[in-house]
Amino acid sequence: MFDDWRGFKERKLSNDWKRKFSELARVTRGHILKMTTAAGSGHPGGSMSSMDIYLMLYFMARVDPKQPYRDDRDRIIISHGHTSPGVYAALAAAGFFDITPALHGFRQAGSPFEGHVERTIPGVEWDTGNLGQGLSVGIGKAIYSKLSGNNYHTYVVMGDGEQQKGQIAEARRMAVKYSLYNVTAVVDYNRLQISGKIADVMPQDIRAEWLADGWQVLEIDGHDFEQLYDAFHKATHDEQHSYLIMAHTVMGKGVSFMENDESYHGAAVKLNDFDHAMAELGIENDIEVLMQQRKAGPPPRFKNHPPGYPVLDPGRPITYSPEDKLDNRSAWGKALMSVAEINMGRDGFHMAVFDNDLAGSVKTDSFGKKYPGNFFQCGISEHNTAAMAGALSVEKFLSVWADFGVFGIDETYNQARLNDINKTNLKLFCTHSGVNVGEDGKTHHCLDYFGLLNSTFGWKLITPADPNQTDRVVRYVLSTPGNFAVIMGRSKLAVITDEQGQPFFGENYRYHYGRMETIRKGENVALVAAGNMLHVALKAWSKLAAEDMRVTLVCVSDWSDLHIDDIKMLASYPHVVTIEDHNVKTGLGTAIASTMLSTGLSTGFTRLGINKYASSGTPEELYRMLGIDDDTLVSKVKVILGEFLKIGC
Amino acid sequence: MFDDWRGFKERKLSNDWKRKFSELARVTRGHILKMTTAAGSGHPGGSMSSMDIYLMLYFMARVDPKQPYRDDRDRIIISHGHTSPGVYAALAAAGFFDITPALHGFRQAGSPFEGHVERTIPGVEWDTGNLGQGLSVGIGKAIYSKLSGNNYHTYVVMGDGEQQKGQIAEARRMAVKYSLYNVTAVVDYNRLQISGKIADVMPQDIRAEWLADGWQVLEIDGHDFEQLYDAFHKATHDEQHSYLIMAHTVMGKGVSFMENDESYHGAAVKLNDFDHAMAELGIENDIEVLMQQRKAGPPPRFKNHPPGYPVLDPGRPITYSPEDKLDNRSAWGKALMSVAEINMGRDGFHMAVFDNDLAGSVKTDSFGKKYPGNFFQCGISEHNTAAMAGALSVEKFLSVWADFGVFGIDETYNQARLNDINKTNLKLFCTHSGVNVGEDGKTHHCLDYFGLLNSTFGWKLITPADPNQTDRVVRYVLSTPGNFAVIMGRSKLAVITDEQGQPFFGENYRYHYGRMETIRKGENVALVAAGNMLHVALKAWSKLAAEDMRVTLVCVSDWSDLHIDDIKMLASYPHVVTIEDHNVKTGLGTAIASTMLSTGLSTGFTRLGINKYASSGTPEELYRMLGIDDDTLVSKVKVILGEFLKIGC
Repeated sequence: MFDDWRGFKERKLSNDWKRKFSELARVTRGHILKMTTAAGSGHPGGSMSSMDIYLMLYFMARVDPKQPYRDDRDRIIISHGHTSPGVYAALAAAGFFDITPALHGFRQAGSPFEGHVERTIPGVEWDTGNLGQGLSVGIGKAIYSKLSGNNYHTYVVMGDGEQQKGQIAEARRMAVKYSLYNVTAVVDYNRLQISGKIADVMPQDIRAEWLADGWQVLEIDGHDFEQLYDAFHKATHDEQHSYLIMAHTVMGKGVSFMENDESYHGAAVKLNDFDHAMAELGIENDIEVLMQQRKAGPPPRFKNHPPGYPVLDPGRPITYSPEDKLDNRSAWGKALMSVAEINMGRDGFHMAVFDNDLAGSVKTDSFGKKYPGNFFQCGISEHNTAAMAGALSVEKFLSVWADFGVFGIDETYNQARLNDINKTNLKLFCTHSGVNVGEDGKTHHCLDYFGLLNSTFGWKLITPADPNQTDRVVRYVLSTPGNFAVIMGRSKLAVITDEQGQPFFGENYRYHYGRMETIRKGENVALVAAGNMLHVALKAWSKLAAEDMRVTLVCVSDWSDLHIDDIKMLASYPHVVTIEDHNVKTGLGTAIASTMLSTGLSTGFTRLGINKYASSGTPEELYRMLGIDDDTLVSKVKVILGEFLKIGC
Repeated sequence: MFDDWRGFKERKLSNDWKRKFSELARVTRGHILKMTTAAGSGHPGGSMSSMDIYLMLYFMARVDPKQPYRDDRDRIIISHGHTSPGVYAALAAAGFFDITPALHGFRQAGSPFEGHVERTIPGVEWDTGNLGQGLSVGIGKAIYSKLSGNNYHTYVVMGDGEQQKGQIAEARRMAVKYSLYNVTAVVDYNRLQISGKIADVMPQDIRAEWLADGWQVLEIDGHDFEQLYDAFHKATHDEQHSYLIMAHTVMGKGVSFMENDESYHGAAVKLNDFDHAMAELGIENDIEVLMQQRKAGPPPRFKNHPPGYPVLDPGRPITYSPEDKLDNRSAWGKALMSVAEINMGRDGFHMAVFDNDLAGSVKTDSFGKKYPGNFFQCGISEHNTAAMAGALSVEKFLSVWADFGVFGIDETYNQARLNDINKTNLKLFCTHSGVNVGEDGKTHHCLDYFGLLNSTFGWKLITPADPNQTDRVVRYVLSTPGNFAVIMGRSKLAVITDEQGQPFFGENYRYHYGRMETIRKGENVALVAAGNMLHVALKAWSKLAAEDMRVTLVCVSDWSDLHIDDIKMLASYPHVVTIEDHNVKTGLGTAIASTMLSTGLSTGFTRLGINKYASSGTPEELYRMLGIDDDTLVSKVKVILGEFLKIGC
């Protein structure tokens, strides 16, 4: 049970609560200053302007300090994560944890009380810091509220400077389109940002913009608890509108020399001035004690209780026969439907598929037709989609996003990075990658999917080679926790077969994440290819074999976690040739070569890949122009084999 | 001289022009259909709805088909680049080139007439395709109009679906803040996008949003040339407001079966239906001829006449002495001022510095104070800034952007990629990179600057090692064409000295882009480090030297173009150890190791770098926690040297 007053249940804030809040506001402001001055860095100014909002939310929303991870809690998202001292002070005051370790452990290496709020802290829902992300996260949480039937409310607290981020407009429209009246946004409107007054830095009519996108706007004094309560009460209980609460506040509120001074945005009060600040707040100055405690090292981190990943039945694989000629993206669409049909309606199973105006191309249209309540058409607003779908994926929820590579990866890389930092379980399916995209030309050729996602620490990237492997990969990815990107091309592909003409990835094939597959066994040279390029390599292999040059052909589907045994296997050949529809500098060949050399192995090594932007054209034409076609591969191998012969002589 | 009617000079469109436009509208629509059907792909629907807008602009704006690159021309930016057939048809009609090669060469590999418009075509100002970029580009052009004194007008034509991109809101506000009334935006409001009606895909009150951001809105019939002319006339000549023209149009306009059918957004008319379409337009069906001509291969590309890069005096280097302890970012700020002071005011020299609310931290504040007219405070809207600053940099103009790494690279990677595709000359200075950022924590640690920019083909990345090298690098970068990113940390650093205690990068040092520097010469092991990490490696070197283990220490400042002679030099050591404040998977060590193995060289190789997200903390604490500190480096080298001894036995 939540405390019975929670959920802004009473019509009015009682005088008892007003007195209590007033006292808490004084004490927690002292905590903000202690944390930042003991650490010698941090953001006290905005923490003090947001402080009363935080107190109101953590005391009055339906959250439970003793069960901070219960599924039906209200979600409170802090978008301007640099106000962490205010958040920690409010959470501690509300009983989520003891304040002492926060006071001396703030911003210390290894401490949970980091400079920007993180999910490892009970009560914190999302790691923020890069601005403009919070509302998208809140929209994700609001969707879960509806789909799970928990019907909780989501509150998103934002800065006023960050209203300059375009992503917020995308999120606003998404809320209105899907009638997400269970989300309330609050702007800490202190009218200052790092460089000065927001009116000077970037003039903006925040109220007019939110109204234009269909939200209601309430303007209040953000340091008046009665007004705060009334506004939240109204926003929480109105089931016909989404609200922005513009809370007029004062940066540095509570300490005279800090008020309205933007230099306290990102700087702690100096030790010299600290006594003065504490005296104004009527709080004992124990900064020396805290700085002493700080020397003992960081406080322990919290044991987290994340909701876990949904258990789902991946179903039985579909095997396509060599006669079928299918694009991988259609195989993905079919596998998605198959998994959805098996699991949808099962107790506690929830999923959503997100689209950015490309459902027909990215093959989520059948899903959308069959499960309209689980399909979200987000329009051309990828930044919001990436953050929103990521936020949903940390609930016990299957969150699926399909897009072209340049939008799902290139345009939204930072959202992928922030999702990764948040340990999300997002499933990203990119149906258009490489110059295989063809005629749409260079702005649409995603040549860096691995270079980018390999620059994170958690994302795993898979490029299935044919419709059969795609089917297996999709089932694996949907049923496995973590962030996965499945990268496909748009061309139709033959089923990869063994030398007897049977499907290589057929009935008896078991997909093992992280391992390579030897498609053809030979000698002297190992050709290594992935995804669509395996078909080019197989053509080259056949041409070579027809001339009695029987080399080995290896398929890599999983680029992110190369297995040492596979690297050793490759190094056992006199020469390795990699071929990829990807920037050669940051692709598969580079990963294999650098891993090989760093593990003390070496062999002849040739990397074929893309080294310039391509034009429009058919994939085959572009492969030829870029030197990643079968004939180029054949001639490279012949030169290599020729050199062996010379050495043999 | 421009044609005397240009610049929407006449108060009204004459009847002659109306007749002429009406005829052109018919013929050019035929061209759209021929191009797309001959190619078998493309976007006829939106091309036909934008067609009349394009004709009006290319005939009436102050552009010169015979001198398409003159500096005082109006700039016409096509944001929805997929309407390329309409653009090509209009440009040809206006005399920029002959239509024939476009008709048969559209979307053919190697042809200039690509699927999305590109700058290689005379009259096209910017390669677009990824939506939501055009207004930012237009704002950049509008700034150049003012700073150069050319006082031309900029027109930006956009789709209605792309209004869903948040970046557009950022660009709108920038225009209003800087009173850029010399830019006019047009929305081709055909009310359809790929997935259907925009009102269903993502409901949006476009008019209200633009008004909220301070623009004027004119709504007109986008197929009525008189209304088009009147609107452009008003928008062009009103010097007190920026205008959006909402041109109500019909997708597929001109062919009955295509009108209002969104399936023609991205699909050509089938050959079966082609006759019918031509008959409706009253145009001869010569599609067979075109398809025959297409077989002869792509038409030649145009010879471009880009404006070139400004000639500027890089000034005399400043040398800091070993007593100075300075952060690289301050050295960068001083070098920027030095170059500005020398060149500002010189005939034809123009520059701008862009900031995103971080001028004090990224050290552009002194520039801003001294040159307020050349300093643009863009607020927290990095996507707009990246595209706008890039667009400026292709004029004969020095365009400088300073930001934190996570905003200047991670958040805006796709804008960097699109700039690169546009062959821009953007100078990006990131003052906060790596875990060296420290207490702000993981969301602010940019660990992937090279992994990302190395995934493009043009960006060059430099990490100067100390204030002296920073000074030289800044002068080099500012005076050299191309996209450069200079990556710095925020820590204060000692001046790197030689063994005699003199500045290593001192008076006699000449910076040669692309080459490594041997800081200390030794044997057995080559330590390789860059930027801030060179100081860690130097500490380790000294500790090893104190124990009579004298290894070699190599400084890499330029990561993007490793020189084969340097790779050979490294391979000549029995073991190479790289250390970097960057994701180890996509950083310097990976680039060196993979280049080495691919050029037929090998040696012992150890990569030290970052393999997980770090917490808040001081840089030194974080280096230790991540194993990129001097003591870890010392112990690794000792193990390596020990193994040599064993082998020696």
